[in-house]
Formats: sequence, C-alpha cells, structure tokens
Amino acid sequence: MDPALSPAGRRAASIARHLAGALPAPPSLELAPCLSYAPPESNEPTPAFPLGELRALLDGHHLQERDWVFGAMEESPLFCRRSRGGGKVFVSPDYNEGKEAQREATMRRVAHLARLGVFRGWLTEHSADAELRMIALGECITVYDHSLAIKIGVHFFLWCQTWGVFRIPCRFDALLDDVFRISGPAPSASNPSYVRHLAGAIAIDPAPTIDQLFSSGPLARERVFNLKPELTLSRAYIIFFLHFRGSAIKFLGTKRHHDKWLLDTENYVIKGCFAMTELGHGSNVRGIETVATYDSKTKEFIINTPRESAQKYWIGGAANHATHTIVFAQLHINGINEGVHAFVAQLRDGDGNVLPNIHIADCGHKIGLNGVDNARIWFQNIRVPRENLLNLVADVLPDGQYVSMIDDPDQRFAAFLSPLTLGRVNIAVNSVYISKVALAIAVRYSLSRRAFSATPDGVEMLLLDYPSHQRRLLPLLAKACVFSCAGNFMKKMYVNRTPEMSKAIHIYSSALKATLTWQNMTTLQECRESCGGQGLKTENRVGIFKAEFDVQSTFEGDNNVLMQQVSKALYAEFLSAQKKKKPFKGLGLEHLNGPIPVIPDNLTSSIFRSSKFQMDLFCLRERDLLKRFPTEVSHHIARGESREKALMLSYQLAEDLAKAFTERTILQIFLEDEKNAPDGSLKVVLELLRSLFVMVSIDESASFLRYGYLSRDNVASVQKEVMKLCGELRPHALAVVSSFGIPDAFLSPLAFDWIEANALSSGSH
Amino acid sequence: MDPALSPAGRRAASIARHLAGALPAPPSLELAPCLSYAPPESNEPTPAFPLGELRALLDGHHLQERDWVFGAMEESPLFCRRSRGGGKVFVSPDYNEGKEAQREATMRRVAHLARLGVFRGWLTEHSADAELRMIALGECITVYDHSLAIKIGVHFFLWCQTWGVFRIPCRFDALLDDVFRISGPAPSASNPSYVRHLAGAIAIDPAPTIDQLFSSGPLARERVFNLKPELTLSRAYIIFFLHFRGSAIKFLGTKRHHDKWLLDTENYVIKGCFAMTELGHGSNVRGIETVATYDSKTKEFIINTPRESAQKYWIGGAANHATHTIVFAQLHINGINEGVHAFVAQLRDGDGNVLPNIHIADCGHKIGLNGVDNARIWFQNIRVPRENLLNLVADVLPDGQYVSMIDDPDQRFAAFLSPLTLGRVNIAVNSVYISKVALAIAVRYSLSRRAFSATPDGVEMLLLDYPSHQRRLLPLLAKACVFSCAGNFMKKMYVNRTPEMSKAIHIYSSALKATLTWQNMTTLQECRESCGGQGLKTENRVGIFKAEFDVQSTFEGDNNVLMQQVSKALYAEFLSAQKKKKPFKGLGLEHLNGPIPVIPDNLTSSIFRSSKFQMDLFCLRERDLLKRFPTEVSHHIARGESREKALMLSYQLAEDLAKAFTERTILQIFLEDEKNAPDGSLKVVLELLRSLFVMVSIDESASFLRYGYLSRDNVASVQKEVMKLCGELRPHALAVVSSFGIPDAFLSPLAFDWIEANALSSGSH
Repeated sequence: MDPALSPAGRRAASIARHLAGALPAPPSLELAPCLSYAPPESNEPTPAFPLGELRALLDGHHLQERDWVFGAMEESPLFCRRSRGGGKVFVSPDYNEGKEAQREATMRRVAHLARLGVFRGWLTEHSADAELRMIALGECITVYDHSLAIKIGVHFFLWCQTWGVFRIPCRFDALLDDVFRISGPAPSASNPSYVRHLAGAIAIDPAPTIDQLFSSGPLARERVFNLKPELTLSRAYIIFFLHFRGSAIKFLGTKRHHDKWLLDTENYVIKGCFAMTELGHGSNVRGIETVATYDSKTKEFIINTPRESAQKYWIGGAANHATHTIVFAQLHINGINEGVHAFVAQLRDGDGNVLPNIHIADCGHKIGLNGVDNARIWFQNIRVPRENLLNLVADVLPDGQYVSMIDDPDQRFAAFLSPLTLGRVNIAVNSVYISKVALAIAVRYSLSRRAFSATPDGVEMLLLDYPSHQRRLLPLLAKACVFSCAGNFMKKMYVNRTPEMSKAIHIYSSALKATLTWQNMTTLQECRESCGGQGLKTENRVGIFKAEFDVQSTFEGDNNVLMQQVSKALYAEFLSAQKKKKPFKGLGLEHLNGPIPVIPDNLTSSIFRSSKFQMDLFCLRERDLLKRFPTEVSHHIARGESREKALMLSYQLAEDLAKAFTERTILQIFLEDEKNAPDGSLKVVLELLRSLFVMVSIDESASFLRYGYLSRDNVASVQKEVMKLCGELRPHALAVVSSFGIPDAFLSPLAFDWIEANALSSGSH
Repeated sequence: MDPALSPAGRRAASIARHLAGALPAPPSLELAPCLSYAPPESNEPTPAFPLGELRALLDGHHLQERDWVFGAMEESPLFCRRSRGGGKVFVSPDYNEGKEAQREATMRRVAHLARLGVFRGWLTEHSADAELRMIALGECITVYDHSLAIKIGVHFFLWCQTWGVFRIPCRFDALLDDVFRISGPAPSASNPSYVRHLAGAIAIDPAPTIDQLFSSGPLARERVFNLKPELTLSRAYIIFFLHFRGSAIKFLGTKRHHDKWLLDTENYVIKGCFAMTELGHGSNVRGIETVATYDSKTKEFIINTPRESAQKYWIGGAANHATHTIVFAQLHINGINEGVHAFVAQLRDGDGNVLPNIHIADCGHKIGLNGVDNARIWFQNIRVPRENLLNLVADVLPDGQYVSMIDDPDQRFAAFLSPLTLGRVNIAVNSVYISKVALAIAVRYSLSRRAFSATPDGVEMLLLDYPSHQRRLLPLLAKACVFSCAGNFMKKMYVNRTPEMSKAIHIYSSALKATLTWQNMTTLQECRESCGGQGLKTENRVGIFKAEFDVQSTFEGDNNVLMQQVSKALYAEFLSAQKKKKPFKGLGLEHLNGPIPVIPDNLTSSIFRSSKFQMDLFCLRERDLLKRFPTEVSHHIARGESREKALMLSYQLAEDLAKAFTERTILQIFLEDEKNAPDGSLKVVLELLRSLFVMVSIDESASFLRYGYLSRDNVASVQKEVMKLCGELRPHALAVVSSFGIPDAFLSPLAFDWIEANALSSGSH
C-alpha cells in the first residue's frame, strides 16, 4: 500500500481491490465445532481420592439422614419438581409467586415434613447425637429453601428451646411426679429425705451424691434448708442452671402443662415464634422497650408496647400462623426494672384469630425470604399469668418477690440470650452449605462452558482452564471445605456443651457465624458473576441465593457487633492473663504461652504448605494483634478517653484481631481433621485445600505486610504460590464438588446439560 | 462473700440475700428517653457549602430536565405512589407482583413517558447537548426502576442506534433527495458536478472542500470515479465512517423507508430490540453461531439458528413486545464467512403475532429485572432482503459482491460492536446514581438510628457517630462523588466523540463501566448491611437494588473481560512507545514521559491531602505496573508460552495495572473538576472527598505495600488519616447526600420518619 495515500485514499484503494477481486479471500472463520454440551465428567480425570471420604469429613455426621430428607423433598410435588434438560429433575420453590402464595407453600411443606416424621424427636430426644441429627436435617432443608428452614427454625429452635423443653434423661419426669406427690400443698423443703429422693430419682448413673448434684447447679443444700415456706415445691419449682449436664433445662409450669405443650409443639398444633427484636432495638437487646409489669394482686404480668419504637419487629411466623410467642420485655416489679426477661404469650386462638389487645401487622415484602411471614406485634396491656415468666434464671415467687440465681445483671442477661446460640450455630453451618451448592453449580458450569480460544482457529477454552477463573473460584472452594470443618467443630462443641464452655461457645459461635456468613455472601457474588448471564436466572439458583441469604449477616447478631464482641473477649483474656500473671488457657490461646514463632526468610513452596509454617504465621499474627490492640486501647485511655470510647476508636485493630483469631482457629480445626483423616490420596487434596485457604488469606489481607509478619518478597512468592495451588487443585475441582453430598436435584440446570435445558423443545419456563 | 463457699454455695447465699431483702436494689435500668424519630436535619449542622454547587458538579448537566422527569414519575399513579410515614410519598415499582404483571406495568410506564414527551428528540436531535439530555433522563428513570430503564434502553440505545438513525445536520436529507433525483435509474457516479453537489448539500459551515469531505470518511474522489457501474447511487448508497463529524451515521435503505421507521420508532409503533448474545456465546461475540447466508438469486439473506447453542438469549423486550430486532450473525457469502455482521429482522406483525419460522421463548424468572421481558429467539431459515444488512462498514452490492470500507476484520468487527459503547456509558453513570440513592438512605438512617450507649445510663449513640460506622459508609460516599465526576467526563467525551477518539472512548468506557458497577455492588451490600433488618424490606430500596443491578457487572461486557481489554490496550501502548521510541500520548499516559515521581518519606496529613502527592503516588503505581506487566508477559514468552497464554498467566498484574490506570484517571478527572469548581466552602469538602477516596484506595489495596510504593510506616499513617478524614467528613455527610438531587420520593421511608412509617395506624404494607 502506498503510504503516500491519505487514509481516504487507502480506503478507496481497498475497495477497489475488493471490487477487482484482487484480494485473496480473507481467512475463513470456520464455525467452531458443534457446540454441544459435554458433561464435566467427560473432560475431567477420574477422582483421585474416594469421594465418600471427603464427604464424610465435610458433612461430618448423619449422612444417611441427610440423604433421606433430600430424597423426601425431591419426591414430593409440594417441593415443585421440574424436569429440565435431558431427563433431569430439579426441585426449588417458585419465587415468581407473590409473598402470600410463597408463605402458604412454605407452611404446606412444613406440614409435609412433619407428617414424614422429619421433626420426630427434635423436642423429646436429648442426646448430642439427636441434636446433631436435627441440625443436619436443618442444613438439608436450608439447601432447598431458606424460608422453609427459618419457618421451622423459629418454631423448633427459638420458640421451643426457650419456653421449656426437657432435655434431661426422662426419669426426671418421674422425679417431678414424686415431687408433686411428696410436696403436696404445703411441703417442707427442709425434709432431708425429700432431697435424697430428688437425687435418687434423677437416675443418673452412678447416682450422684447430694453434693455432686448441687455442685452442678441446683439449689444448694443450704439453700434448700433455708428456703422460706413460700418457696413451695407444689408448683414443681426447680431451677437448674442452663446446660445442666450438657442439656438445656428450662421448666415452665407444671408437668401437666408441659407435656401438653410439648406434644402440641412437636405436632405443630402450637406454632411458636420468638419476639425479641423491636423496631428501635435490634443489636442492643438490653435497650428493648416492651414492658412487663407485675400485678401482685392478680399475679399476672401486664405486657405493653409503650410506644411505636417498641413494636416487636421481624417476628418470623407471626404474621400468618403463630399461636404463641416468647416475648422479651423489661420486667418491672416492686418499683424496680429488673431488666430483660422472657415471657410466653398467646397470640391466636385455636381458630387462628388474633387475641384481643394484640395487634399484628405484616412486615411487608422483603428482598428475599418471602416464604416467611414476618410480623410486627403490639401488646396493649395484655395479661399473662405469673407462670408465663420463663423462670430460667430468675423467677417471681407467688408473693411477688423477685428471685434470681444469678446476681450479676450482665450474666443474667447473657443467660436470657443463650437461645440465640443454637441459632448462630445453625446459621453458620447453613451458610457454608449454601456456598457449597453455589460452588458446585459454578464449578460444573465452568467445566462445560467455553469462551474464546487461545489461538485464532482453536477450540474455545473451558472457563476453568483460565488461570484467572481458577483464581476466582478455587480459593472459594477451598474455604468452603475448610469452613465446613469449622462448622462441624462448632456443632460438636455445642451439642456437648457444659456450663464451663459457655464463654468459649459464645465466642466461637459469634466468630464463626460472622465469618462464615460473610464468606457465603462473597462466594455467592463471585459464583453469580462467574456464571455470567445464566447466573441471573432464578432457576439456576446461584443468583437467587444472594437475596435469600443476605439476612444472615445481620440477623441473630449483626456480624460487625459479633466480631467486636470477639475482640472484646480476647482483650479481656489478655488483661486477665496479664493481671493474674497466669498463662493463657482456652480459646486455643495456649500458643501465646510459648515462644514467639519465627518465620524463615526463604519461603519455598514446601514450606508454604507445611502446617508448621501456616500455624506459626497465623499464631504470630494473632499474638501480635493481641498486643497491638490493647496497646492502642490503653493509649487512648491514657489520652483521657473512656474505655468504651477507646475501644470504639481502636475498631480497626479490633477487626484485625478478631479475624486473626478466627482464621487461626479455623486452620487449627482443619489441621486436626486432616490429621484424623484416612491416610492416602485424600490427604493430598486436603493439604491443597488447606494451603490454598492459608495462602489466599495472606494474599488478600494487607495485615501480613502492614504489620511486618512477612516481607515483600515473601508476599510476592505467596501470590505465585496461590496461582500454583489453583493450578494443582484444578484437576480435583470436579471431584471436590462431587463430594458435597448434594443430590443433583438440588443443584440447577446450569450444572448439567444447560444447552438441552434451553432447547426449543423444552418450552418456556 | 466467703471465697471458701463452692459456686453453689455462693449462689445459695445470693438467693438468700435476695430473699432476706438485704441486697441493695440493682441499678435501675431506666427506659431510654422516649425513642421518637428525630430527622437528621435536627441533629446535624447547617450545610457548610451551597448544596446547589455540589449538585451542579455531581449531576453535571440538565438539572432542570432531571427535576422535570422525576416530578413526572412522582405524580403518576402508574408509578405506584404510596403515602408512608408522616405524609411523605414514595414511588417504587411493586416487586411482589409476578413477572408478567411487572412487565405490563413497565410497558405502561414506557408509554406514559412517551406520551409526556420524555423521548422527544432522542432520535431526531443530533447535538451533544441532546445526547447528554437523553442520558440524564435515563439516569433519573434508572433511579425509579432498572427494568424501566433497560426496556427503554434496548429500544432507544441499542436498536435505534444501530439500525439507522440520522445524526447529521438535517440538510443531509436534502442531499439524499438530490442524490435520488440526480442519479436516477442508471446514474454515472463519475459526474463531477454530482460530487460538488454532494459537498454543497451537506451544508456544513463553511462548506468543506471535496478533499476535506472525503478525508473524514466518505468515498474518496478516486473511488467515486472508479466505481463500477454496478455501484448505483439510486439506492442512495452512501457509506460514512462511524462517527462522521462526531455523530454516528448509519443508513439503511431508502430515505422513504427511513423516515417511516424513524417516526414509528420514536412513537413506539416499532418496538426494537438487540439480538447479539447467544446461549453459547456472550463475551466472545466473534464466535456467535447464528448464520446469515446470502442468496444471490433472490437477493435475500437467509438467517438461521443452526443448533441450540446458537439461540439468541437475554434479548430484552423480545419475549412480549418487540416487533423488530437487530440480529448479529456470521455472514456467509460467496462461499466465505465474512464474519459477524448485523441485520434487521422483523419478529412480530402489527397485531403482535410472532412471524412464521421465528420461535420466541421466555428466559424465565430472574433474580431481578422482572419488568424486562427477556427472550430466547430461534430463526428457522427466515429470509430478509439485502437491504436489511446494516451496511455501516460493509455491504453486499446488488450483484452479490461483498464490499467493505475496512480491510482489517478485527477493526471491522470492532465497528459493529460500537453500539455497545453508549450502553456502557449509560451503565456506568447509572450505577453511580444508584449508589447515591443507597447512600442517601443509609446515611440519613444512620443519622437517626441509635444503638448502644457509651456510658451505662447514657443516651444511645447515633450509628454514624461510631468511627467504625463512619469507616463503612463515608469512603463509599466519597467514591460515589468522585465517580460521579468520572461519569460526567465519560459522558462529555462520548457525546463529543470523533473518529480519532474511538480507541480512547473504548478504553475509558470499558474501565469505567467495570469499575463503577463493581463499586456500586460493593456500596449496595454495605448500605444494606448498615441498615440492618430494615435493609431487607423491599420498600426501603437499598436491598432490592442489589438484585436489580447485579446484571451490570456481566452484561454489555463482562467486567473481568473489559478490564483485561484495558490492560491489553495499555500493554499495546507500552509496546508501541517502546518500539517507535516515541513519547506516550493519550489516555493520560503523558506522565510517563516525565521523571519518576518521588514520594517523600515523611508523610504528614497535609502532604496526604495534597494533589501533588496523590497524583504522584497514583502515577508512580501506574508507571511501575506498566513496566512489571509487560516484563512478566515477556518472561512467559521467553519460556516458550504463546503471547495469549503469557497474557493469561499474567492476569494478576493485568488486573493491578488496569485498576491503577483507572484510579489515576478518576483522580485526575476529579482534580480538574475541583480546580474548576467555585472558590469557597465547597472546595474544602471536595478536598476531603478526594482525599478520602485516595487514602481509602491506598488502605484497601495491598499493591502499595506489595510493590513498595509506600513503606509500612506510611501505610500505617494512611490508615490513621482515613479515620481522621472520616471524622472530618462526618459533619458534612448529610449535606453531601442532600446535594444528590434525588427527590425524597425516590429514596424510601427508611430515610425519613421510619418510626411513623411503621406506626400501627399506618397499616400493613
């Protein structure tokens, strides 16, 4: 071409050539080979490890029960079975329906599961195994639909846990019968033979001595003998500490009442809910404004909503169906506000009509979870009997005296909040499960979707063959596996709880609830985007999960507040160890008693993957932040700030510390599981997953550079190691997601033949 | 208390004391002062700067028109006016409706806006001002509802822009008339007087010479005189380069056809859509599989969907309403695949019936945007006349010859994709606007919501008085303001486009579309969480935006792919400058021609806030990454990888580079706007906003430490500076969000008296 020609001239010359037929034919852009769907299995290597072993590790427990309930949901037409794409069937709620229809569908599903016996034993079996089974079934139900899980959860977990579920060996029933029989109308509690009978009837093997019995919580011998006559036992008034012998015991009313309520609850005749949150107070439960004033004449509490900000809010199950609720209110008695207590109130009669002086309104349409009927509730001076106070840790005696087992109002309040703990454990493990569903879909899609070729005429590349796509998905996959194990740890700790563990349980459940739910939202967003437009289709599930699970980061404890509590607890540990000059004990902080870990300068791939390096580094960070944070707080206090203000100003270090603690904890848990895993090929993959989790945590947190735990060169090496690990995990990606134990029906068309699912013959959907 | 007592003993003693009345009354937890709503205005200082000045800067243009269309939407019952809380009125679509109802509501709103004249001139006015006005109205419509904006966008922006909109001075009409009149059935294009007439009739002042005329694109003089007789002008066949004199000119068919189509489109008699994406190809448009084969006998193109993966997908507007579409297909002609071209096809007749051999199916329920009827389309060998090829840059002559202005198939393809640019500009600016709505709501809520007190009996604190809450929201606020100005820059560049600018426009629009939409999703998530449970209520808007705007990160160009393109373009600039030993020119890269910026060791607050430091730092980073990235790529190539593979492997540096370029660009734009802003109090706030944007960008990106642009001490100071800036911006927060120009009705009840909005008397909603 003549460079002297103007651009226009060149163009003209080009056209002229075209017209003269002088140009060689341009390269033929052949159509890509027939773009038909090839399942991931056809491309990927056979699994390098036994899938069942990984599933056993990740699920942890009750695999058969999970399969059973998955199967039950898959079979039932109430769960919207749909054939989509090559004979595959999927189940998923219909989100196109209005909230009213979604709620009705949810209730029908609850009833169906009840009929199937899914909830059998949830209220009557008291072992750790039974609790784990209940949580496992809840995880699977959550995979189907979060609304369904929440609807069930507010009834079984919040309502039932709180008002009065016997969770002790059933011979305690016999004990109570005896108590009623012996005590009669005017018993003398100072009868030693009664006390012996008490001990004997508890039927713990071997029978405890009286001292043993009382040391775990119940009334001390002295207390029994000093009881005023008013403290009659004819009302079967026995107070046990929460978590007596690993079980929560709360007792309301007489046994006769109790049995009735128990069966009615298990059979959903009673539908319970949990009214703690108010319009004006969510995180700050201590500030709630609903008032329960004791009327000593009528021996009733008058529950009232004194102003609009006090209306109960977000009460799941209450807008349409709930017959009863737990109400949290400030107890006013004898001219004193004794703080937040819990009461039972009935909302509706047997015909579903709202009782007088109770107003219920809908919370309205939500961005998700429209299968849950959330309500707002106003109480207009309703009256409930004295027995309706949940006398867990405090009670009002018939003569109007307020008594409590716990002196300290803070601890008393904490005891009232304990029902939330099971909720947090559930939320944490459910969030990991949903991440797994989303990742299974996104990974399978990325193993069957092609886009762009590396060479001009080459076959287009699978998404997961792009290093950048691996970097987007595989770290999330690693975290889901590692967090799964953290969830199992949490569950096991919770179901085997003892009173001594309650602080640790509170801290771990707070840290894990916050961390796992935030990670879930991050995972869902990345999975949605990595599925492109297909991620926006509701039936493909990855997208709809975002709205359905968004609530997790702010309900049952706002994540930011929970992590602050974690940092405050660690701060307290630090101060306590410092002050008492005692070694750290508990919360895995024992590493602080040893020497400061030393990180080698030269970090090779094999060092990066060693558990020693990984633990050393995470412990080093935790140790350092557990020094920096109190230092910063003290610095502010020295400058004249109050301690509360100093803590507020040090929020950045608080966040870093809580994160460091949590990540070290999670790593430690996984290392333990890895150690106990069957020897063989699985361990190779576990090391990959663990190392990717650790390396990405370093890569994505400025703290390692910021605080100097690693040099710049190290961190550059970490980034390369991340890429290397992604490449090594790539061939295992399909096998890993196939180990999640999630039946195909609970994934989505996008995870299978998404071309066939969209075939013209498939019709509109 | 006797330490010798066992825990049980102590508890017993405590009870005994209670019973004996010996304990002092526990501290009375008085109810908090009446928790009534206090509007932010009552707490906050009066604005320190004129709100109108900030609005003028952020909105940039057409404030009156924006107010007008906001008012029009607010008044109309079609837009669901609702009274909520103390006499306030809000408008927002009803998301509880099924998708069918949402679509119908959307169409009715489109018709209403059309009747009001909102779209007047969108197709007939050709000035930069008219385009800006159109985009401004689109921003406001987006604030109401994304479905509505998209429904309008696919019709006016994608359909109309592409098939044939005259955007040149109207005397070109006269030109064409003359052309038809002169040329007749068998014209001689070599008639010089014709050419002079051509020039004169274009009516550009002053009239260009023939050389000038042809140098901007049209047929060169030589070309005209060398035309074969077949190239008749009786079909008014004139090809102009895209963006002739700053306007897109695409011409299809005769003027008679054109006028009719133009009016019908502006009046929505024709409803257009845009069928580019396929099930199997989204990002990789070049790989689409729909085929258009030329039948030279009948002078028609036969458009066919050869397999399921080729079905058109996500075609907005097509499922219910569209009568016509642009179809992108591989042009097969004379045995050669000439690549992707665009055609017009009719989908439905005047009665709305789908034409024969076209199959349309719904894409189904989406996680959001259910007001847009997205379709899948199959073409079963439909025939369209030769004239239906959009002969923008290439054409098929009556005798079946394929001709093109552009030799290079890549450039030819890029020309076909140019309609997407306006879409990307719109998406970018719309996303910032939505961030502003969400922030206005979240900030106003945080200025009226209290939780926890710093002292035991103190009044609970406003959320935004917590340093941690400031850290969550105020950087997002700063970014929204700064990004708003970047959006204005983009719009101005686009509406004043010339052919020489097309590369820059492509790079800037890609970088800004990706960056601003991702920032929007981050902002929405944080705003939702910071509003707690209230953020889940649909009517409060912050939550529902997440699902409604999620699509932005993957449609009209996947963000990851766009940023890769940015990095590749920068890489090309680097190679070009290196190879040709010429200075950098364009894209703001001129700073690379100067000396390496030096960052002082000792960084004070005043240095942090200086524009010199900020630009130096961002330029330093960009410079360094523009060296590292090519170095890494070369390294991989030296190891034997192909260039494509080397680029893939260097994805991390590519991402860092694209981000560095974009942030430097955004900073530079804002500095320019700041300089031009009115002197006075506004500049104080602009400096705060800018500095917070920069400081947070440093704080949140490991790159500054990772690559050594700042020392650890510096970065620690940056973190403190962030906190300081948040505290200084805190008193301006209300004023800033009040400058957004968003009427109250388009926020939500949460931004006002959210207690009154929930009052019992307000009823259920």
